[in-house]
Amino acid sequence: MTENQNKVIELVKQTKPLIFQEMTHEKVTEKGAADYVTNVDVAVQNFLKDALAKEFPDIALIAEEKENLGLDPAKSYWILDPIDGTTNLIRDYHLSAVSLGLYENGEITFGVVYNPFTEELFCGAKGEGAFLNGVPIHVSDQPEFKDAVVSFGSSPYEKNRAKDLFPVFYNVFMNCADFRRTGSAALDLCYVACGRQHAFLEQNLKPWDYSGATIILKEAGGTISGWKNEKLPYLANADILACVPQFREILLQLIEQKC
Amino acid sequence: MTENQNKVIELVKQTKPLIFQEMTHEKVTEKGAADYVTNVDVAVQNFLKDALAKEFPDIALIAEEKENLGLDPAKSYWILDPIDGTTNLIRDYHLSAVSLGLYENGEITFGVVYNPFTEELFCGAKGEGAFLNGVPIHVSDQPEFKDAVVSFGSSPYEKNRAKDLFPVFYNVFMNCADFRRTGSAALDLCYVACGRQHAFLEQNLKPWDYSGATIILKEAGGTISGWKNEKLPYLANADILACVPQFREILLQLIEQKC
Repeated sequence: MTENQNKVIELVKQTKPLIFQEMTHEKVTEKGAADYVTNVDVAVQNFLKDALAKEFPDIALIAEEKENLGLDPAKSYWILDPIDGTTNLIRDYHLSAVSLGLYENGEITFGVVYNPFTEELFCGAKGEGAFLNGVPIHVSDQPEFKDAVVSFGSSPYEKNRAKDLFPVFYNVFMNCADFRRTGSAALDLCYVACGRQHAFLEQNLKPWDYSGATIILKEAGGTISGWKNEKLPYLANADILACVPQFREILLQLIEQKC
Repeated sequence: MTENQNKVIELVKQTKPLIFQEMTHEKVTEKGAADYVTNVDVAVQNFLKDALAKEFPDIALIAEEKENLGLDPAKSYWILDPIDGTTNLIRDYHLSAVSLGLYENGEITFGVVYNPFTEELFCGAKGEGAFLNGVPIHVSDQPEFKDAVVSFGSSPYEKNRAKDLFPVFYNVFMNCADFRRTGSAALDLCYVACGRQHAFLEQNLKPWDYSGATIILKEAGGTISGWKNEKLPYLANADILACVPQFREILLQLIEQKC
Protein backbone atom coordinates (compact mmCIF):
# COMPACT_ATOMS: atom_id res chain seq x y z
CA MET A 1 0.00 0.00 0.00
CA THR A 2 1.19 3.51 -0.79
CA GLU A 3 1.36 6.30 1.77
CA ASN A 4 -1.83 7.80 0.37
CA GLN A 5 -3.62 4.46 0.51
CA ASN A 6 -2.60 3.98 4.13
CA LYS A 7 -3.85 7.49 4.86
CA VAL A 8 -7.27 6.57 3.45
CA ILE A 9 -7.35 3.34 5.43
CA GLU A 10 -6.72 5.32 8.61
CA LEU A 11 -9.53 7.74 7.71
CA VAL A 12 -11.94 4.84 7.23
CA LYS A 13 -10.98 3.41 10.62
CA GLN A 14 -11.73 6.77 12.21
CA THR A 15 -15.43 6.28 11.42
CA LYS A 16 -15.77 3.76 14.25
CA PRO A 17 -16.69 6.27 17.01
CA LEU A 18 -19.19 7.94 14.65
CA ILE A 19 -20.92 4.59 14.22
CA PHE A 20 -20.79 3.64 17.89
CA GLN A 21 -21.56 6.98 19.49
CA GLU A 22 -25.30 6.80 18.94
CA MET A 23 -25.42 3.09 19.43
CA THR A 24 -26.30 2.58 23.05
CA HIS A 25 -28.92 -0.14 23.08
CA GLU A 26 -31.36 2.14 24.85
CA LYS A 27 -31.40 4.66 22.03
CA VAL A 28 -32.05 2.28 19.17
CA THR A 29 -35.73 1.71 19.81
CA GLU A 30 -37.78 0.12 17.06
CA LYS A 31 -39.35 3.49 16.39
CA GLY A 32 -36.10 5.41 16.29
CA ALA A 33 -34.23 2.88 14.15
CA ALA A 34 -34.64 4.66 10.81
CA ASP A 35 -33.50 7.98 12.28
CA TYR A 36 -30.54 6.29 13.91
CA VAL A 37 -29.34 4.74 10.66
CA THR A 38 -29.79 7.98 8.75
CA ASN A 39 -27.80 9.83 11.41
CA VAL A 40 -24.94 7.31 11.26
CA ASP A 41 -25.00 7.23 7.44
CA VAL A 42 -24.83 11.00 7.21
CA ALA A 43 -22.19 11.35 9.93
CA VAL A 44 -19.86 8.79 8.31
CA GLN A 45 -20.42 10.21 4.84
CA ASN A 46 -19.81 13.83 5.87
CA PHE A 47 -16.67 12.89 7.78
CA LEU A 48 -15.15 10.95 4.86
CA LYS A 49 -16.33 13.45 2.26
CA ASP A 50 -14.59 16.32 4.03
CA ALA A 51 -11.47 14.34 4.95
CA LEU A 52 -11.05 12.93 1.42
CA ALA A 53 -11.68 16.33 -0.20
CA LYS A 54 -8.95 17.83 1.96
CA GLU A 55 -6.41 15.16 0.99
CA PHE A 56 -7.54 14.68 -2.62
CA PRO A 57 -9.24 17.87 -3.79
CA ASP A 58 -9.50 16.73 -7.42
CA ILE A 59 -11.47 13.53 -6.77
CA ALA A 60 -15.25 13.89 -6.35
CA LEU A 61 -17.34 11.59 -4.17
CA ILE A 62 -20.18 9.32 -5.24
CA ALA A 63 -22.14 8.09 -2.24
CA GLU A 64 -25.41 6.61 -1.08
CA GLU A 65 -26.69 9.62 0.81
CA LYS A 66 -26.33 12.18 -1.99
CA GLU A 67 -27.44 12.85 -5.53
CA ASN A 68 -24.92 11.60 -8.05
CA LEU A 69 -25.68 13.39 -11.29
CA GLY A 70 -23.64 14.01 -14.43
CA LEU A 71 -21.01 11.34 -13.78
CA ASP A 72 -18.16 11.26 -16.29
CA PRO A 73 -16.62 7.78 -16.75
CA ALA A 74 -13.33 9.39 -17.74
CA LYS A 75 -12.92 11.11 -14.37
CA SER A 76 -11.80 9.67 -11.02
CA TYR A 77 -14.23 9.20 -8.13
CA TRP A 78 -14.38 7.94 -4.61
CA ILE A 79 -17.37 5.60 -4.35
CA LEU A 80 -18.65 5.35 -0.78
CA ASP A 81 -21.27 3.40 1.10
CA PRO A 82 -21.12 4.97 4.56
CA ILE A 83 -22.93 1.94 6.02
CA ASP A 84 -23.46 -1.21 3.97
CA GLY A 85 -25.85 -3.48 5.89
CA THR A 86 -28.18 -0.93 7.49
CA THR A 87 -30.76 -3.49 8.66
CA ASN A 88 -27.92 -5.28 10.45
CA LEU A 89 -26.86 -1.99 12.03
CA ILE A 90 -30.36 -1.38 13.37
CA ARG A 91 -30.52 -4.91 14.76
CA ASP A 92 -27.00 -4.88 16.26
CA TYR A 93 -26.18 -7.86 14.02
CA HIS A 94 -22.45 -7.00 13.81
CA LEU A 95 -22.40 -7.44 10.01
CA SER A 96 -22.20 -3.90 8.68
CA ALA A 97 -19.32 -2.12 6.97
CA VAL A 98 -18.01 1.15 5.63
CA SER A 99 -17.16 0.54 1.96
CA LEU A 100 -14.94 2.86 -0.08
CA GLY A 101 -13.52 2.42 -3.58
CA LEU A 102 -11.39 4.54 -5.89
CA TYR A 103 -12.62 4.59 -9.48
CA GLU A 104 -9.97 5.55 -12.06
CA ASN A 105 -9.79 4.99 -15.82
CA GLY A 106 -12.88 2.81 -15.94
CA GLU A 107 -11.94 0.47 -13.09
CA ILE A 108 -11.58 0.29 -9.32
CA THR A 109 -7.91 0.55 -8.34
CA PHE A 110 -8.19 0.68 -4.55
CA GLY A 111 -10.79 -0.43 -2.04
CA VAL A 112 -11.38 -0.53 1.72
CA VAL A 113 -14.17 -2.39 3.55
CA TYR A 114 -14.25 -1.94 7.32
CA ASN A 115 -16.49 -3.73 9.82
CA PRO A 116 -16.13 -1.79 13.07
CA PHE A 117 -17.98 -4.47 15.08
CA THR A 118 -15.51 -7.26 14.34
CA GLU A 119 -12.59 -4.86 13.82
CA GLU A 120 -11.95 -6.45 10.44
CA LEU A 121 -10.49 -4.17 7.77
CA PHE A 122 -10.26 -5.58 4.25
CA CYS A 123 -8.30 -3.64 1.62
CA GLY A 124 -6.91 -4.17 -1.83
CA ALA A 125 -5.02 -2.20 -4.45
CA LYS A 126 -4.41 -2.96 -8.10
CA GLY A 127 -1.27 -5.05 -8.44
CA GLU A 128 -0.58 -4.86 -4.70
CA GLY A 129 -2.73 -7.70 -3.34
CA ALA A 130 -5.60 -7.94 -0.86
CA PHE A 131 -5.38 -7.93 2.92
CA LEU A 132 -7.44 -8.56 6.06
CA ASN A 133 -6.00 -6.55 8.94
CA GLY A 134 -2.68 -6.42 7.12
CA VAL A 135 -2.47 -10.15 6.40
CA PRO A 136 -2.63 -11.24 2.72
CA ILE A 137 -5.86 -13.05 1.78
CA HIS A 138 -6.70 -15.44 -1.02
CA VAL A 139 -9.88 -17.06 -2.28
CA SER A 140 -10.54 -20.71 -1.49
CA ASP A 141 -9.08 -23.43 -3.70
CA GLN A 142 -12.00 -25.77 -2.94
CA PRO A 143 -12.12 -28.03 -6.00
CA GLU A 144 -15.73 -29.25 -6.05
CA PHE A 145 -18.86 -27.13 -6.33
CA LYS A 146 -20.82 -29.58 -4.18
CA ASP A 147 -18.70 -28.33 -1.27
CA ALA A 148 -19.22 -24.62 -2.03
CA VAL A 149 -20.85 -22.12 0.33
CA VAL A 150 -22.77 -19.49 -1.65
CA SER A 151 -24.16 -16.24 -0.31
CA PHE A 152 -27.51 -15.02 -1.67
CA GLY A 153 -28.49 -11.37 -1.88
CA SER A 154 -32.26 -11.18 -1.60
CA SER A 155 -32.93 -7.66 -2.95
CA PRO A 156 -35.17 -6.99 0.07
CA TYR A 157 -36.20 -3.54 -1.17
CA GLU A 158 -37.42 -4.95 -4.49
CA LYS A 159 -39.65 -7.84 -3.50
CA ASN A 160 -41.02 -8.06 -7.05
CA ARG A 161 -37.74 -9.75 -8.00
CA ALA A 162 -38.20 -12.64 -5.55
CA LYS A 163 -40.47 -14.67 -7.81
CA ASP A 164 -37.65 -14.96 -10.34
CA LEU A 165 -34.82 -14.99 -7.78
CA PHE A 166 -35.90 -17.91 -5.60
CA PRO A 167 -35.73 -20.44 -8.46
CA VAL A 168 -32.15 -19.29 -9.09
CA PHE A 169 -31.30 -19.64 -5.39
CA TYR A 170 -32.93 -23.08 -5.32
CA ASN A 171 -30.99 -24.22 -8.38
CA VAL A 172 -27.69 -23.06 -6.88
CA PHE A 173 -28.49 -24.53 -3.44
CA MET A 174 -29.29 -27.95 -4.89
CA ASN A 175 -25.81 -28.10 -6.42
CA CYS A 176 -23.65 -26.52 -3.72
CA ALA A 177 -23.15 -27.32 -0.01
CA ASP A 178 -25.17 -24.55 1.62
CA PHE A 179 -26.13 -20.91 1.36
CA ARG A 180 -25.57 -17.90 3.57
CA ARG A 181 -27.32 -14.54 3.80
CA THR A 182 -25.39 -11.86 5.66
CA GLY A 183 -27.27 -8.73 4.59
CA SER A 184 -24.11 -6.85 3.57
CA ALA A 185 -22.96 -7.05 -0.05
CA ALA A 186 -19.60 -5.43 0.74
CA LEU A 187 -18.85 -8.03 3.42
CA ASP A 188 -20.12 -10.84 1.19
CA LEU A 189 -17.59 -9.86 -1.49
CA CYS A 190 -14.79 -9.70 1.09
CA TYR A 191 -15.86 -13.05 2.55
CA VAL A 192 -15.40 -14.60 -0.90
CA ALA A 193 -12.01 -12.88 -1.08
CA CYS A 194 -10.78 -14.37 2.21
CA GLY A 195 -12.17 -17.88 1.63
CA ARG A 196 -15.11 -17.82 4.05
CA GLN A 197 -17.47 -18.52 1.19
CA HIS A 198 -17.08 -19.35 -2.50
CA ALA A 199 -19.58 -17.13 -4.24
CA PHE A 200 -22.01 -14.26 -3.82
CA LEU A 201 -24.85 -13.29 -6.12
CA GLU A 202 -27.29 -10.41 -5.96
CA GLN A 203 -29.24 -8.47 -8.55
CA ASN A 204 -29.30 -4.71 -9.14
CA LEU A 205 -26.64 -3.63 -6.66
CA LYS A 206 -25.78 0.05 -6.61
CA PRO A 207 -22.23 1.27 -7.30
CA TRP A 208 -21.53 1.91 -3.60
CA ASP A 209 -22.74 -1.59 -2.67
CA TYR A 210 -20.19 -3.41 -4.80
CA SER A 211 -17.49 -1.16 -6.23
CA GLY A 212 -15.14 -0.78 -3.26
CA ALA A 213 -14.88 -4.51 -2.62
CA THR A 214 -14.31 -5.56 -6.25
CA ILE A 215 -10.60 -4.80 -6.18
CA ILE A 216 -10.22 -6.67 -2.88
CA LEU A 217 -11.87 -9.71 -4.43
CA LYS A 218 -9.85 -9.53 -7.66
CA GLU A 219 -6.53 -9.09 -5.88
CA ALA A 220 -7.38 -12.10 -3.71
CA GLY A 221 -7.78 -14.19 -6.87
CA GLY A 222 -11.56 -13.94 -7.22
CA THR A 223 -13.63 -13.08 -10.26
CA ILE A 224 -16.57 -10.71 -10.60
CA SER A 225 -18.97 -9.86 -13.41
CA GLY A 226 -22.62 -9.39 -14.22
CA TRP A 227 -24.99 -12.39 -14.21
CA LYS A 228 -24.38 -12.82 -17.94
CA ASN A 229 -20.63 -12.59 -17.52
CA GLU A 230 -20.60 -8.96 -18.64
CA LYS A 231 -18.00 -6.42 -17.50
CA LEU A 232 -19.04 -4.27 -14.54
CA PRO A 233 -19.93 -0.61 -15.07
CA TYR A 234 -18.85 0.50 -11.53
CA LEU A 235 -20.67 3.84 -11.87
CA ALA A 236 -24.06 2.19 -12.50
CA ASN A 237 -26.19 -0.59 -11.00
CA ALA A 238 -25.30 -4.20 -11.83
CA ASP A 239 -26.38 -7.80 -11.19
CA ILE A 240 -23.34 -9.16 -9.36
CA LEU A 241 -21.81 -12.62 -9.61
CA ALA A 242 -18.64 -12.86 -7.51
CA CYS A 243 -16.91 -16.19 -7.12
CA VAL A 244 -13.74 -18.21 -7.05
CA PRO A 245 -12.54 -18.81 -10.64
CA GLN A 246 -13.09 -22.58 -10.55
CA PHE A 247 -16.86 -22.18 -9.96
CA ARG A 248 -17.53 -19.38 -12.46
CA GLU A 249 -18.66 -21.55 -15.34
CA ILE A 250 -21.05 -23.68 -13.28
CA LEU A 251 -22.58 -20.63 -11.56
CA LEU A 252 -23.17 -18.87 -14.89
CA GLN A 253 -24.90 -22.05 -16.11
CA LEU A 254 -27.04 -22.46 -12.95
CA ILE A 255 -28.16 -18.82 -13.23
CA GLU A 256 -28.86 -19.05 -16.95
CA GLN A 257 -30.99 -22.18 -16.49
CA LYS A 258 -33.46 -20.17 -14.40
CA CYS A 259 -33.19 -16.64 -15.88
CA MET B 1 -27.35 -17.76 38.14
CA THR B 2 -26.51 -20.26 40.90
CA GLU B 3 -22.98 -21.22 41.85
CA ASN B 4 -23.32 -24.48 39.90
CA GLN B 5 -24.60 -22.66 36.83
CA ASN B 6 -21.69 -20.24 36.96
CA LYS B 7 -19.34 -23.20 37.27
CA VAL B 8 -20.79 -24.70 34.07
CA ILE B 9 -20.52 -21.38 32.25
CA GLU B 10 -16.82 -21.23 33.17
CA LEU B 11 -16.33 -24.79 31.89
CA VAL B 12 -17.94 -23.89 28.56
CA LYS B 13 -15.65 -20.85 28.24
CA GLN B 14 -12.65 -23.10 28.79
CA THR B 15 -13.32 -24.79 25.44
CA LYS B 16 -11.95 -21.76 23.56
CA PRO B 17 -8.31 -22.91 23.41
CA LEU B 18 -9.46 -26.39 22.32
CA ILE B 19 -11.26 -24.79 19.39
CA PHE B 20 -8.46 -22.40 18.48
CA GLN B 21 -5.45 -24.64 19.01
CA GLU B 22 -5.77 -26.48 15.71
CA MET B 23 -7.04 -23.47 13.88
CA THR B 24 -4.02 -21.93 12.29
CA HIS B 25 -5.07 -21.08 8.77
CA GLU B 26 -2.29 -23.22 7.34
CA LYS B 27 -3.62 -26.39 8.89
CA VAL B 28 -7.20 -26.07 7.73
CA THR B 29 -6.64 -27.04 4.12
CA GLU B 30 -9.67 -27.94 2.03
CA LYS B 31 -8.63 -31.56 2.24
CA GLY B 32 -8.04 -31.57 5.99
CA ALA B 33 -11.23 -29.68 6.87
CA ALA B 34 -13.33 -32.69 7.85
CA ASP B 35 -10.58 -34.08 10.06
CA TYR B 36 -10.10 -30.71 11.68
CA VAL B 37 -13.77 -30.37 12.59
CA THR B 38 -13.93 -33.91 13.93
CA ASN B 39 -10.86 -33.25 16.06
CA VAL B 40 -12.34 -30.06 17.51
CA ASP B 41 -15.76 -31.68 18.04
CA VAL B 42 -14.24 -34.62 19.89
CA ALA B 43 -11.85 -32.48 21.94
CA VAL B 44 -14.61 -30.13 23.12
CA GLN B 45 -16.99 -33.01 23.83
CA ASN B 46 -14.44 -35.06 25.78
CA PHE B 47 -13.41 -32.05 27.84
CA LEU B 48 -16.97 -31.11 28.80
CA LYS B 49 -18.05 -34.72 29.28
CA ASP B 50 -15.27 -35.34 31.79
CA ALA B 51 -15.59 -31.99 33.52
CA LEU B 52 -19.39 -32.25 33.86
CA ALA B 53 -19.21 -35.86 35.05
CA LYS B 54 -16.79 -34.82 37.77
CA GLU B 55 -19.04 -31.99 39.00
CA PHE B 56 -22.38 -33.72 38.39
CA PRO B 57 -21.84 -37.50 38.48
CA ASP B 58 -25.55 -38.31 38.33
CA ILE B 59 -26.33 -36.47 35.08
CA ALA B 60 -25.55 -38.32 31.83
CA LEU B 61 -24.53 -36.56 28.62
CA ILE B 62 -26.33 -36.61 25.28
CA ALA B 63 -24.09 -35.25 22.53
CA GLU B 64 -23.54 -35.12 18.80
CA GLU B 65 -20.39 -37.22 18.69
CA LYS B 66 -21.72 -40.24 20.58
CA GLU B 67 -24.46 -42.81 20.47
CA ASN B 68 -27.44 -41.79 22.56
CA LEU B 69 -29.44 -44.93 23.20
CA GLY B 70 -32.04 -45.84 25.80
CA LEU B 71 -32.89 -42.29 26.83
CA ASP B 72 -35.35 -42.00 29.72
CA PRO B 73 -37.45 -38.81 29.62
CA ALA B 74 -37.82 -38.94 33.40
CA LYS B 75 -34.07 -38.60 33.96
CA SER B 76 -31.84 -35.52 33.79
CA TYR B 77 -29.34 -35.02 30.94
CA TRP B 78 -26.80 -32.59 29.71
CA ILE B 79 -27.45 -32.05 25.99
CA LEU B 80 -24.32 -30.89 24.16
CA ASP B 81 -23.38 -29.78 20.68
CA PRO B 82 -19.60 -29.40 20.94
CA ILE B 83 -19.60 -27.26 17.77
CA ASP B 84 -22.81 -25.98 16.25
CA GLY B 85 -22.00 -24.50 12.83
CA THR B 86 -19.26 -26.83 11.63
CA THR B 87 -19.24 -25.55 8.03
CA ASN B 88 -18.67 -22.07 9.47
CA LEU B 89 -15.83 -23.42 11.60
CA ILE B 90 -14.13 -24.94 8.56
CA ARG B 91 -14.53 -21.68 6.64
CA ASP B 92 -13.42 -19.41 9.52
CA TYR B 93 -16.82 -17.71 9.31
CA HIS B 94 -16.87 -16.76 13.02
CA LEU B 95 -20.43 -18.06 13.47
CA SER B 96 -19.98 -21.28 15.43
CA ALA B 97 -20.85 -22.05 19.02
CA VAL B 98 -20.64 -24.55 21.83
CA SER B 99 -24.21 -25.29 22.92
CA LEU B 100 -25.09 -26.94 26.23
CA GLY B 101 -28.48 -27.47 27.87
CA LEU B 102 -29.69 -29.13 31.04
CA TYR B 103 -32.76 -31.32 30.57
CA GLU B 104 -34.79 -31.95 33.76
CA ASN B 105 -38.38 -33.08 34.27
CA GLY B 106 -39.29 -32.88 30.61
CA GLU B 107 -37.92 -29.40 29.95
CA ILE B 108 -34.69 -27.45 29.56
CA THR B 109 -33.93 -25.52 32.75
CA PHE B 110 -30.51 -24.09 31.97
CA GLY B 111 -28.62 -23.35 28.76
CA VAL B 112 -25.32 -21.90 27.60
CA VAL B 113 -24.36 -20.96 24.01
CA TYR B 114 -20.83 -19.69 23.53
CA ASN B 115 -19.30 -18.26 20.35
CA PRO B 116 -15.54 -18.17 21.00
CA PHE B 117 -14.87 -16.08 17.86
CA THR B 118 -16.98 -13.12 18.94
CA GLU B 119 -16.52 -13.83 22.67
CA GLU B 120 -20.30 -13.79 23.09
CA LEU B 121 -21.71 -16.04 25.78
CA PHE B 122 -25.48 -16.40 25.96
CA CYS B 123 -27.03 -18.12 28.96
CA GLY B 124 -30.43 -18.56 30.53
CA ALA B 125 -31.97 -20.37 33.49
CA LYS B 126 -35.61 -21.09 34.26
CA GLY B 127 -37.06 -18.18 36.18
CA GLU B 128 -33.72 -16.37 36.27
CA GLY B 129 -33.68 -14.57 32.92
CA ALA B 130 -31.42 -14.65 29.87
CA PHE B 131 -28.09 -12.90 29.45
CA LEU B 132 -25.46 -12.00 26.86
CA ASN B 133 -22.08 -11.63 28.54
CA GLY B 134 -23.87 -10.98 31.82
CA VAL B 135 -26.23 -8.31 30.49
CA PRO B 136 -29.98 -9.16 30.46
CA ILE B 137 -31.42 -9.67 26.96
CA HIS B 138 -34.95 -9.45 25.60
CA VAL B 139 -36.59 -10.24 22.31
CA SER B 140 -37.53 -7.37 19.98
CA ASP B 141 -40.85 -5.57 20.44
CA GLN B 142 -41.05 -4.79 16.70
CA PRO B 143 -44.79 -4.44 16.12
CA GLU B 144 -45.16 -5.19 12.39
CA PHE B 145 -44.22 -8.40 10.59
CA LYS B 146 -43.31 -6.48 7.43
CA ASP B 147 -40.29 -5.19 9.40
CA ALA B 148 -39.23 -8.62 10.68
CA VAL B 149 -35.88 -10.26 9.97
CA VAL B 150 -36.28 -14.04 9.73
CA SER B 151 -33.49 -16.60 9.71
CA PHE B 152 -33.91 -19.68 7.51
CA GLY B 153 -32.33 -23.03 8.27
CA SER B 154 -31.73 -24.82 4.99
CA SER B 155 -31.27 -28.42 6.16
CA PRO B 156 -28.13 -28.66 4.00
CA TYR B 157 -27.55 -32.33 4.79
CA GLU B 158 -31.06 -33.26 3.63
CA LYS B 159 -31.35 -31.65 0.22
CA ASN B 160 -34.48 -33.67 -0.50
CA ARG B 161 -36.35 -31.26 1.80
CA ALA B 162 -35.49 -28.18 -0.27
CA LYS B 163 -38.28 -28.65 -2.82
CA ASP B 164 -40.84 -28.23 -0.02
CA LEU B 165 -38.79 -25.78 2.05
CA PHE B 166 -38.14 -23.08 -0.53
CA PRO B 167 -41.85 -22.31 -1.04
CA VAL B 168 -42.12 -21.80 2.74
CA PHE B 169 -39.07 -19.52 2.74
CA TYR B 170 -40.49 -17.60 -0.23
CA ASN B 171 -43.85 -17.16 1.48
CA VAL B 172 -42.21 -15.87 4.67
CA PHE B 173 -39.79 -13.60 2.77
CA MET B 174 -42.60 -11.97 0.78
CA ASN B 175 -44.27 -10.92 4.03
CA CYS B 176 -41.29 -9.94 6.21
CA ALA B 177 -38.42 -7.47 5.70
CA ASP B 178 -35.57 -9.82 4.86
CA PHE B 179 -34.05 -13.17 5.65
CA ARG B 180 -30.73 -14.27 7.11
CA ARG B 181 -28.86 -17.57 7.02
CA THR B 182 -26.10 -17.93 9.60
CA GLY B 183 -25.48 -21.68 9.48
CA SER B 184 -25.73 -22.12 13.27
CA ALA B 185 -29.11 -23.02 14.79
CA ALA B 186 -27.89 -22.35 18.34
CA LEU B 187 -26.78 -18.84 17.44
CA ASP B 188 -29.95 -18.25 15.43
CA LEU B 189 -32.04 -19.00 18.52
CA CYS B 190 -29.88 -16.70 20.65
CA TYR B 191 -30.07 -13.97 18.00
CA VAL B 192 -33.86 -14.07 18.28
CA ALA B 193 -33.45 -13.92 22.07
CA CYS B 194 -31.34 -10.75 21.96
CA GLY B 195 -33.37 -8.95 19.29
CA ARG B 196 -30.99 -9.28 16.33
CA GLN B 197 -33.69 -11.11 14.40
CA HIS B 198 -37.35 -11.88 14.97
CA ALA B 199 -37.70 -15.53 14.01
CA PHE B 200 -35.84 -18.68 13.05
CA LEU B 201 -37.22 -21.74 11.35
CA GLU B 202 -35.58 -25.02 10.42
CA GLN B 203 -36.83 -28.56 9.98
CA ASN B 204 -35.62 -31.72 11.68
CA LEU B 205 -33.11 -30.25 14.11
CA LYS B 206 -31.43 -32.66 16.48
CA PRO B 207 -31.72 -32.26 20.27
CA TRP B 208 -28.20 -30.80 20.57
CA ASP B 209 -28.92 -28.27 17.81
CA TYR B 210 -31.81 -26.60 19.59
CA SER B 211 -32.22 -27.73 23.21
CA GLY B 212 -29.59 -25.63 24.97
CA ALA B 213 -30.75 -22.35 23.45
CA THR B 214 -34.48 -22.86 24.08
CA ILE B 215 -34.32 -21.70 27.69
CA ILE B 216 -32.30 -18.64 26.67
CA LEU B 217 -34.97 -17.75 24.12
CA LYS B 218 -37.87 -18.37 26.50
CA GLU B 219 -36.33 -16.41 29.36
CA ALA B 220 -35.74 -13.51 26.92
CA GLY B 221 -39.47 -13.46 26.16
CA GLY B 222 -39.41 -15.56 22.99
CA THR B 223 -41.56 -18.52 22.02
CA ILE B 224 -40.56 -21.86 20.53
CA SER B 225 -42.49 -24.86 19.22
CA GLY B 226 -42.74 -27.26 16.33
CA TRP B 227 -43.95 -26.03 12.93
CA LYS B 228 -47.49 -27.08 13.87
CA ASN B 229 -47.27 -25.32 17.23
CA GLU B 230 -46.59 -28.60 19.02
CA LYS B 231 -44.60 -28.84 22.26
CA LEU B 232 -40.91 -29.69 21.81
CA PRO B 233 -39.62 -33.16 22.74
CA TYR B 234 -36.05 -31.95 23.59
CA LEU B 235 -34.70 -35.53 23.52
CA ALA B 236 -35.77 -36.09 19.89
CA ASN B 237 -35.58 -34.27 16.55
CA ALA B 238 -38.04 -31.45 15.87
CA ASP B 239 -39.06 -28.90 13.23
CA ILE B 240 -38.28 -25.65 15.02
CA LEU B 241 -40.20 -22.38 14.90
CA ALA B 242 -38.68 -19.81 17.25
CA CYS B 243 -39.99 -16.26 17.25
CA VAL B 244 -41.08 -13.20 19.16
CA PRO B 245 -44.60 -13.78 20.52
CA GLN B 246 -46.24 -11.08 18.38
CA PHE B 247 -45.27 -12.88 15.12
CA ARG B 248 -46.14 -16.44 16.17
CA GLU B 249 -49.61 -16.54 14.68
CA ILE B 250 -48.60 -15.12 11.29
CA LEU B 251 -45.59 -17.43 11.01
CA LEU B 252 -47.67 -20.51 11.78
CA GLN B 253 -50.08 -19.38 9.06
CA LEU B 254 -47.35 -18.69 6.48
CA ILE B 255 -45.84 -22.12 7.15
CA GLU B 256 -49.19 -23.90 7.03
CA GLN B 257 -50.08 -22.29 3.69
CA LYS B 258 -47.13 -24.06 2.07
CA CYS B 259 -46.82 -27.29 4.08
